[in-house]
Amino acid sequence: VIANRSLTCSATPWDFEFLPESTALLVIDMQNDFCALGGYLHQFMEQKGMGDEAVKALREPIAPLSRVVQSCREAKVAVIYTIESHRPDLADVPSNKMEGSVRVGAPIGSSGPLGRLLVQNERGSEVVDELKPVAGEHIVHKPGKCAFFATELDSILRIRGITHLVISGVTTDCCVFGTLMEARDRGYHTLQLEDCCAAVPRASHDAICELPRAHPQAFGVITNSEAFVKAMESTNRLERRG
Amino acid sequence: VIANRSLTCSATPWDFEFLPESTALLVIDMQNDFCALGGYLHQFMEQKGMGDEAVKALREPIAPLSRVVQSCREAKVAVIYTIESHRPDLADVPSNKMEGSVRVGAPIGSSGPLGRLLVQNERGSEVVDELKPVAGEHIVHKPGKCAFFATELDSILRIRGITHLVISGVTTDCCVFGTLMEARDRGYHTLQLEDCCAAVPRASHDAICELPRAHPQAFGVITNSEAFVKAMESTNRLERRG
Amino acid sequence: VIANRSLTCSATPWDFEFLPESTALLVIDMQNDFCALGGYLHQFMEQKGMGDEAVKALREPIAPLSRVVQSCREAKVAVIYTIESHRPDLADVPSNKMEGSVRVGAPIGSSGPLGRLLVQNERGSEVVDELKPVAGEHIVHKPGKCAFFATELDSILRIRGITHLVISGVTTDCCVFGTLMEARDRGYHTLQLEDCCAAVPRASHDAICELPRAHPQAFGVITNSEAFVKAMESTNRLERRG
Amino acid sequence: VIANRSLTCSATPWDFEFLPESTALLVIDMQNDFCALGGYLHQFMEQKGMGDEAVKALREPIAPLSRVVQSCREAKVAVIYTIESHRPDLADVPSNKMEGSVRVGAPIGSSGPLGRLLVQNERGSEVVDELKPVAGEHIVHKPGKCAFFATELDSILRIRGITHLVISGVTTDCCVFGTLMEARDRGYHTLQLEDCCAAVPRASHDAICELPRAHPQAFGVITNSEAFVKAMESTNRLERRG
Repeated sequence: VIANRSLTCSATPWDFEFLPESTALLVIDMQNDFCALGGYLHQFMEQKGMGDEAVKALREPIAPLSRVVQSCREAKVAVIYTIESHRPDLADVPSNKMEGSVRVGAPIGSSGPLGRLLVQNERGSEVVDELKPVAGEHIVHKPGKCAFFATELDSILRIRGITHLVISGVTTDCCVFGTLMEARDRGYHTLQLEDCCAAVPRASHDAICELPRAHPQAFGVITNSEAFVKAMESTNRLERRG
Repeated sequence: VIANRSLTCSATPWDFEFLPESTALLVIDMQNDFCALGGYLHQFMEQKGMGDEAVKALREPIAPLSRVVQSCREAKVAVIYTIESHRPDLADVPSNKMEGSVRVGAPIGSSGPLGRLLVQNERGSEVVDELKPVAGEHIVHKPGKCAFFATELDSILRIRGITHLVISGVTTDCCVFGTLMEARDRGYHTLQLEDCCAAVPRASHDAICELPRAHPQAFGVITNSEAFVKAMESTNRLERRG
Repeated sequence: VIANRSLTCSATPWDFEFLPESTALLVIDMQNDFCALGGYLHQFMEQKGMGDEAVKALREPIAPLSRVVQSCREAKVAVIYTIESHRPDLADVPSNKMEGSVRVGAPIGSSGPLGRLLVQNERGSEVVDELKPVAGEHIVHKPGKCAFFATELDSILRIRGITHLVISGVTTDCCVFGTLMEARDRGYHTLQLEDCCAAVPRASHDAICELPRAHPQAFGVITNSEAFVKAMESTNRLERRG
Repeated sequence: VIANRSLTCSATPWDFEFLPESTALLVIDMQNDFCALGGYLHQFMEQKGMGDEAVKALREPIAPLSRVVQSCREAKVAVIYTIESHRPDLADVPSNKMEGSVRVGAPIGSSGPLGRLLVQNERGSEVVDELKPVAGEHIVHKPGKCAFFATELDSILRIRGITHLVISGVTTDCCVFGTLMEARDRGYHTLQLEDCCAAVPRASHDAICELPRAHPQAFGVITNSEAFVKAMESTNRLERRG
């Protein structure tokens, strides 16, 4: 019997203990609008001549995250994807967000190579091909940066009895961080996966990843994909033996 | 008649326009637990031998913020203070927060020189003397980092017709940032006051303050106290002339 | 110039004043799962031999509501529809709701004549044909009874500057009432349309409609479709003259 | 060992199973403003010459609730009180509520025999003497009708691991019902105590208490104080034997 067996993942500044059945991996906004040429981020970074470079940076989490997702599937850890996108009529875009997008040269809802920017059911609002959800995995569409804002995420987590969140995705300093902060206020134990997150500029990613090291009481703990996969694999080995 | 006259505050990367009557200054957690010797922050930073230095850093916003607060009072901009504190029975401290505080050597609710750490109605949970609220100003007690979590803040703002928030306080990377992110999801236009915020280490403060410069569509705009006071004073001058 | 002209709708116990541009009609759950043979409600009422009768009762609002919706369209009052439905994987069905549905003989997610009960994208979760939304009207999918729970409704209303809600739909005692209560806590001014709501048994509908008459300070005011359409038509007449 | 032993309370239309440690009794708004002469309710009902009668009706739950509270204390079921009250500066009173209170002749914040109506820290906003909380019991101050609106209630319940709520207080048709509806959306299993609730007119109380009988899948189950105390006592007996 291995039910309710606690796992330990090596992390900084202290280890993260969790039960697979009460843990979920959040894969935040790994969608074409942020991680593909022609998406929302590419469009506004291109105004500074940095579109390609930015997309390249935001694709870096794909490889390690693929391994983490695979590992979660094997260990029966829930995988939940979020997608930032808006209604086609833009009814859920507040004026602060719309105005900002216009000023940076990538109006939400305008047409781009991947469809309308940050709009539902366009190519831009699909999870990148490498990380496609499989049957049984949840996708949460969110109009805000924080994945808990105006969504059913908290309800889904409570219904499943999830108390521990492993957080990944883009961008480290925005949707990832906003979601992590709210998750902690709501009482979830959090583990951030450093190499499964990214932001531009890179310095911003690095600064946010320093926060758990400096103030884990506020920001939770942090590790990388390798350590997390290793913790999961120890389970799987045990299960196969069991 | 000067009612409904829009003001403009010089900011980066673009200016912030606002009406005094629909704007509020948020003064976040400028309380003894973060800004005084013997408070919560002092206690856990002292474990690394950095308590005094940390408190000194977090007191830096007091002087510029005093001027901003005074200016807001004259211009009839609402001033709203938040205080992070918990019930004496700690019923509103989630386990992730309690465990973290224990591990960093400053258990929430334990006794310190300024009373029980991060507990309501103790000396630690009072706004620092230099910034004491005056009659007619609101204080919002919050159990979380984000000032919107489990509080009446949003309701108070809506009732007053507030649509624009000027954000200050400590710490830049935690309660200030979490509040700013949620404020933006809820549609508030935001202006961060760089020299009226602080965090330890300083690099973390600096990194967060770079975010509006890099991505204003996500994080709003930023300025300093001088620019904001100047914008307010222009109103006051006009009003006196009027 | 008729912009910002306030309208008055005769109501009990006092009249309802509103501006068309800051008012929305909420059409709650007028979907086949409640208003058509073979839907969720029909299935569980049929256990008591009352399925047909119940559906007949819940269809009574369709005729008056059609007139109200048409009137709102002409007067440029926003029309917002809610639909109660769940993810195909039922991840957003809490155990209290699932267990209840099983016990009353109509498990959420089980197959019925109109598709899986209370599940998204089935015939049961479509608005009844007579009230089909037109382009530009919003639909809010909700997992709960209250339309504000885990949805973007509040955000959409704020973004449009909506402060006044005209509330209709089914069932009077459940989703309509739960939504009305939350709307009032959030500060919206409310007008309930008695003949545009329904519940089974009828006595329950009647009792809820007595509440505004007894305690308008808590439940807002109430009227019928004729009075509301009349108020709207006065606008339209003025506009045509204008 | 009797830990984690499930109890069963006879209820309609089906029994309520619960564990004492994950159950809380909610005592809603049993405060002088609703249950004492000179309070808010007395003031506005007196406009119709029904003040004394209304208070008498709202005091009826006191006796059965006293027994229930005592029983919960013995069985280690959490007892949580809510109080509806506002800030002295009325910053948290939305205009719909304020206007309604003025129209019914009892403006929130105006002076009455028990202090300012519906204002914090007045005699009116204290729990009635007969039901005074004891050390270790939580009080949640709420600005709205629903106890979850703009309060830390949900957070406190989650932190304690509460999944089942026993609901009592006044008034049945307003704060009790609004809280019950939101509790159910949030996934809590609910049991309403009929004789521990009251409303005026009585017909309104009766109508709301019919709802669980008609639609338990939506409103949960209902019982009376005697049945609930009996279920609790069976525990106590077992514990004493144990």
